[in-house]
Amino acid sequence: MITHPAFACEPWSLRLTGLDVDVLAQSESLFALSNGHIGWRGNLDEGEPHGLPGSYLSGVYEVRPLPYAEAGYGFPESGQTVINVTNGKVIRLLVNDEPFDIRYGRLRAHEQTLDFRDGVLRRTAEWESPDGCPVRVSSVRLVSLVQRAVAAICYEVEPVDEPLRVVVQSELVANEQLPTAAGDPRVAAALEAPLISCENAAWDARAVLVHSTRASGLCVAAAMDHVVDGPDGTGVVAESSPDLGRVTVIASIEPGRPLRLIKFVAYGWSGARSRPAVRDQADAALAAARQTGWDGLLAEQRSYLDDFWARADVKVDGDAEIQQAVRFGLFHLLQAAARGEGRGIPAKGLTGSGYDGHCFWDSEAFVMPVLTYLLPEAVAHALSWRQSTLPMAMDRARQLGLSGAAFPWRTIHGEECSSYWPAGTAAFHINAAIADAVGRYYDITQDEAFDRGVGLELLVQTARLWRSLGHHDAEGDFRIAGVTGPDEYSAVADNNVYTNLMAQRNLYAAADAAKRHPAEARKLHVDEEEMAAWRDAARAMYVPYDKKLGVHPQADGFTEHQVWDFAVTSPDQYPLMLHFPYFDLYRKQVVKQADLVLALHRRGDAFTPEQKARDFAYYERITVRDSSLSACTQAVIAAEVGHLDLAYDYLAEAALMDLEDVEHNTRDGLHIAALVGAWIALVEGLAGMRLHGGVLCFAPRLPSALTGLSFTVSLLGRRLTVRVDQESATYTLLDGEPLKIVHHGKRDVVSRDAPITCAIPPVFPGPAPTQPRGRGPVHRQTREAAGIMRPAGSPAHPAT
Amino acid sequence: MITHPAFACEPWSLRLTGLDVDVLAQSESLFALSNGHIGWRGNLDEGEPHGLPGSYLSGVYEVRPLPYAEAGYGFPESGQTVINVTNGKVIRLLVNDEPFDIRYGRLRAHEQTLDFRDGVLRRTAEWESPDGCPVRVSSVRLVSLVQRAVAAICYEVEPVDEPLRVVVQSELVANEQLPTAAGDPRVAAALEAPLISCENAAWDARAVLVHSTRASGLCVAAAMDHVVDGPDGTGVVAESSPDLGRVTVIASIEPGRPLRLIKFVAYGWSGARSRPAVRDQADAALAAARQTGWDGLLAEQRSYLDDFWARADVKVDGDAEIQQAVRFGLFHLLQAAARGEGRGIPAKGLTGSGYDGHCFWDSEAFVMPVLTYLLPEAVAHALSWRQSTLPMAMDRARQLGLSGAAFPWRTIHGEECSSYWPAGTAAFHINAAIADAVGRYYDITQDEAFDRGVGLELLVQTARLWRSLGHHDAEGDFRIAGVTGPDEYSAVADNNVYTNLMAQRNLYAAADAAKRHPAEARKLHVDEEEMAAWRDAARAMYVPYDKKLGVHPQADGFTEHQVWDFAVTSPDQYPLMLHFPYFDLYRKQVVKQADLVLALHRRGDAFTPEQKARDFAYYERITVRDSSLSACTQAVIAAEVGHLDLAYDYLAEAALMDLEDVEHNTRDGLHIAALVGAWIALVEGLAGMRLHGGVLCFAPRLPSALTGLSFTVSLLGRRLTVRVDQESATYTLLDGEPLKIVHHGKRDVVSRDAPITCAIPPVFPGPAPTQPRGRGPVHRQTREAAGIMRPAGSPAHPAT
Repeated sequence: MITHPAFACEPWSLRLTGLDVDVLAQSESLFALSNGHIGWRGNLDEGEPHGLPGSYLSGVYEVRPLPYAEAGYGFPESGQTVINVTNGKVIRLLVNDEPFDIRYGRLRAHEQTLDFRDGVLRRTAEWESPDGCPVRVSSVRLVSLVQRAVAAICYEVEPVDEPLRVVVQSELVANEQLPTAAGDPRVAAALEAPLISCENAAWDARAVLVHSTRASGLCVAAAMDHVVDGPDGTGVVAESSPDLGRVTVIASIEPGRPLRLIKFVAYGWSGARSRPAVRDQADAALAAARQTGWDGLLAEQRSYLDDFWARADVKVDGDAEIQQAVRFGLFHLLQAAARGEGRGIPAKGLTGSGYDGHCFWDSEAFVMPVLTYLLPEAVAHALSWRQSTLPMAMDRARQLGLSGAAFPWRTIHGEECSSYWPAGTAAFHINAAIADAVGRYYDITQDEAFDRGVGLELLVQTARLWRSLGHHDAEGDFRIAGVTGPDEYSAVADNNVYTNLMAQRNLYAAADAAKRHPAEARKLHVDEEEMAAWRDAARAMYVPYDKKLGVHPQADGFTEHQVWDFAVTSPDQYPLMLHFPYFDLYRKQVVKQADLVLALHRRGDAFTPEQKARDFAYYERITVRDSSLSACTQAVIAAEVGHLDLAYDYLAEAALMDLEDVEHNTRDGLHIAALVGAWIALVEGLAGMRLHGGVLCFAPRLPSALTGLSFTVSLLGRRLTVRVDQESATYTLLDGEPLKIVHHGKRDVVSRDAPITCAIPPVFPGPAPTQPRGRGPVHRQTREAAGIMRPAGSPAHPAT
Repeated sequence: MITHPAFACEPWSLRLTGLDVDVLAQSESLFALSNGHIGWRGNLDEGEPHGLPGSYLSGVYEVRPLPYAEAGYGFPESGQTVINVTNGKVIRLLVNDEPFDIRYGRLRAHEQTLDFRDGVLRRTAEWESPDGCPVRVSSVRLVSLVQRAVAAICYEVEPVDEPLRVVVQSELVANEQLPTAAGDPRVAAALEAPLISCENAAWDARAVLVHSTRASGLCVAAAMDHVVDGPDGTGVVAESSPDLGRVTVIASIEPGRPLRLIKFVAYGWSGARSRPAVRDQADAALAAARQTGWDGLLAEQRSYLDDFWARADVKVDGDAEIQQAVRFGLFHLLQAAARGEGRGIPAKGLTGSGYDGHCFWDSEAFVMPVLTYLLPEAVAHALSWRQSTLPMAMDRARQLGLSGAAFPWRTIHGEECSSYWPAGTAAFHINAAIADAVGRYYDITQDEAFDRGVGLELLVQTARLWRSLGHHDAEGDFRIAGVTGPDEYSAVADNNVYTNLMAQRNLYAAADAAKRHPAEARKLHVDEEEMAAWRDAARAMYVPYDKKLGVHPQADGFTEHQVWDFAVTSPDQYPLMLHFPYFDLYRKQVVKQADLVLALHRRGDAFTPEQKARDFAYYERITVRDSSLSACTQAVIAAEVGHLDLAYDYLAEAALMDLEDVEHNTRDGLHIAALVGAWIALVEGLAGMRLHGGVLCFAPRLPSALTGLSFTVSLLGRRLTVRVDQESATYTLLDGEPLKIVHHGKRDVVSRDAPITCAIPPVFPGPAPTQPRGRGPVHRQTREAAGIMRPAGSPAHPAT
């Protein structure tokens, strides 16, 4: 936890005043701009100092060999790593021969602000060069949510006291030198100089660079153009070399009359189209952006975001930090998913190179459950990407001796890139998460075309996987042996409860979808025998239960394992995986992240309330939350079983994951799934929202510290706003036909002109569950009382 | 299986007539000479053609990095690989300007013979050079069992028809070029040019090369000297360069008067001593060898072997192939272990670079159970080596969060070199195998000094490991979770029966040893509390049992797994690990090698006869024997439960493992443990020998095809010879005080002058167990009937 928070607490923005190299890399991730297609980390305009320079294009990666000292059959031979593409952000400045570099001279003032409504990153600096010339620099940067291939910067420089001669160099830089990756396996392997120059050109105020990748065979074009507004005599020179495009502006400027440079940048890439086609694509996008103009791009961006917030905003009364954090998270969710058309949603979006830029199950299991209610078209796109990778997933299944599709644990392009199979290949639950996302999307949108095409095929191929992965035993029970559940501190166990229950839903969903679309199902060679086999397996799904303890073991035998010795584990030995061998973690009762508790959430229909309370209390004692994917789920179940203050604490942890760098790796990119976890904790936790049989059910209850919570969800062509306070909840239908809802078990119907207000029944939970020594969440209210909240709007780090 | 066997069937030798490049690499392994310190593969004198050139020194290895695409805590960072040291075998020949190379000209006759009693490899060739000059070449090669650092060759060349000029080059060659290793992970990574030249010299008929290794920091010296017996005018020149020592002999020779060259070679190496010290060590050994002379070396070797065979010979009546094979195996056992002082016994001895030259558990679990009865001093040496590696094993245990010592799954020097932890680190049963070898050695030798020093410390540190690895559950049962048993087609399971039972014995043995030696135990900080904790854990050891099936599951949950689909597995998909992923093997009922059945053998006291019969039948159905370490154990239990013909078939498979290249990798070195498996199958299988409470028990029974079996074991300072025929068994004490024995459950005492003959009771086993499709052993009697036995003494491959 950061005890001296750097970032001001404001409802609609994230502001950093001053500059602290300790939080530089973290701030680059937090201030990243993206539209799901292009990602620009919040690096300083002038490029240095930096934590990690980063410009990414969704789907642009390089292939690298995966080494094994002892290889085995089916171990993937090559991996994929997101690469740092041509950097279009760089604008260097020379003030009277001194380069503008905040490490030298004197930085009188510095501020960066990410604006969630305008969708821009603003920066202002006042700097005195080493030879004593003060200058004001400002920039506004955007990555367009409307024009997918476009980013732009408005850059201004102005003397404070007396006239100055300035030189501004606006660049495209390929093959930037990157810092060496650390030993932590989670830090992506940096690839040196991955781009091979194909073409470069410069003329007027324009430049274009075309490169290809060495092994993955992709072609990437980056182009820029500029509008220069400077005093008479301002000179403009364009030049290019293989890895550099540069437009230089030379001007003598006076106080009150800044030099202004609008930089338009466009990207194009393809693995199939020709080099000229890709270059022309970037040039075309650039032409459109120039035509729209800077003000036009700003207006489009604001309008796009106004629409998003009208659908997605969440209001939290009584905790300004959570209010800011949930909007910050939703803003980054939008940035990660909005325009990722045809590509997956990586674990870190396009905010950093962590996890090699891979997509994992968290996209379907955490991001989509939120996105479906706020931006369902992005879910359709991301699931269509999964469908497009089916040939690879089916090849993988065949290689593993299975039917259907085995989706990769981690990938960019679609091939399995996980080299440690017990925590990769064996985590088959990703297939159920995909199926679950399909089912939810259909329940909420009733998108028949999707259901018939993308949805059906994903459901059928994943159901086939489960049918071949499990088997009926002598009693007829259907068992799934030797798989790894969500908890990465266990592996390769039999009958993981989460996996079995999610597979059960997957099997039923496939049979139902095939019944809805018999013609399309026949094309996939589904017949009634197969559908019956899916239903039989689902019906007979084995779920272990420990009668002695009265709880569900996470998997067969789990509760017979020794409990981890938390008493002798010191705080600096977390995360455990960096200080203890897998063999020891796997064989003991210690949980990295919600697994059985995630089953309580996602398959709540399979447990009684009493089981939920007992199971939750049992797993709380052994869950260490060494993963960012845990707190939100624990918040949800804590709330469901009535421990509202505990839910609130977990909510805060999820919401502040990156703002407070809880996992110490925000530098490598944001934890997109954890950020949406704030929404999950609020909406599915405190408001208790669940979708059962196509009907939204709520069981809202606020912790004492919060005075109000309101949010909007879209479903079945309508928008529903829910407003919760300590005593009651009000359901307002903003548009569409009347909607059935359930409030604390009571059915009701809400119509457009008739909001419903329902009282919240009291709850009497038992004693609060305990967590392993030192691993409980920070008590939110204690923290507030201690005055370590971030100040609203005041700079935490004054300029030095 | 080789259906046209290449090697003649003779009782006391292995003879290959002709030369077939298809069996060249295999023959190099079979004809390897070693004394446990030096290993020379049976490469041709002239070096080429070759399968795999190999000269090894026990303990000489190079370090190499172990790469991981996703590393984890505690993964070993570097591995160790045996290296091909300076080759002292090479003797090249030039006949009238034509190099003697059997690939050119015409090979009129060629024969190689490994003589088990003389302990030499003989070769004779008659070759016609491309220009038509016939010549007779012969060599006799030995690696001295008496002079540990010495090897020697007697080389002769003689014209057949008319005088010739010959040049003989006798060499020391460092950094030989090796064939590239194949993709099979079992094939050792060949290391290129591992030796760095430090010193070279040549004078008279002598040469010496001194090298060091790059990363492991070892110094290796090789020296040679010659006695030349040639006609007048024979010239001798010695020369050296960094990687080559060469003595050249030039002579004009006539029919009937061969040129004879005696080559003495000596090696020295050290990781601690200075380069001059190591060089002088080799020179000193060379001086001693020269002093002994060729005839002296031959005589010493024969005498050493006469003594060995008097203690170790096994006679098999009725199957000449098995007779030869068991002697072949015992000969190589001797070669692997005789003089390995201070070093471990590698899985392949010093016959090849397979498995990187590593020592595994098979040394303690298969080799030592035989060696203890035949050559107990070698067991003491090998266990002392284990003790010398305790500091590393204790470091490893600490790294893994455990107490005591965690011995490496595979190593040369003592550090863990296994990079795939589920089949390496997790196979903790190696520690119990070491403890078991200690206990057996003590039971058989009553070597108090060893027991007090080496034995006690090994028992204490392994018992500590088990005590920290397992835990008492709520019922008080002691459980060991998350470990891998002998069967490598399962991994990381709870309560592996073999492991738990072996750990139980280990814990009891440590407590008993500490009680025998209280003062020494106190020095190891053993107190009565700790001893009680060991006994408590042993007493409470949990052994799973499947009541429904009436069999022991190999580990918790095993019998609930799906049975492997043998019906769809084709013969070319074996070994399964090369065609199916571990994840699939681990989660199904398919057994690579005896695991539960090994428990039936080694811990037979823990099972009733009925359980043995049922368990054996159950595991026979799912055991595929993709490991060479399985057949002998299956033979033992097949015999115990009365399936004598099946035991005979497994005996044959173990015995012929390398002679018939059953696993298709004899080229990389012999399977030493499988070779001793022939003895295990005969003595512990057909003769049913077990050691219970220090008393030898026998339950002999022969399959109908065998007319007799006799063998000798040494124990408690006595030698006992057992002679079994179809009707009875005769026990003869060759020396020492009267000895208690048990024959088919009946106690008796045998005295030196009073052999005992006991009748063999009949046996009525149930129906024969079945094996997976195509994985049953070859039916020995069917094979004999089909006439595909190897002919006695006649050449199978005539010279071409």
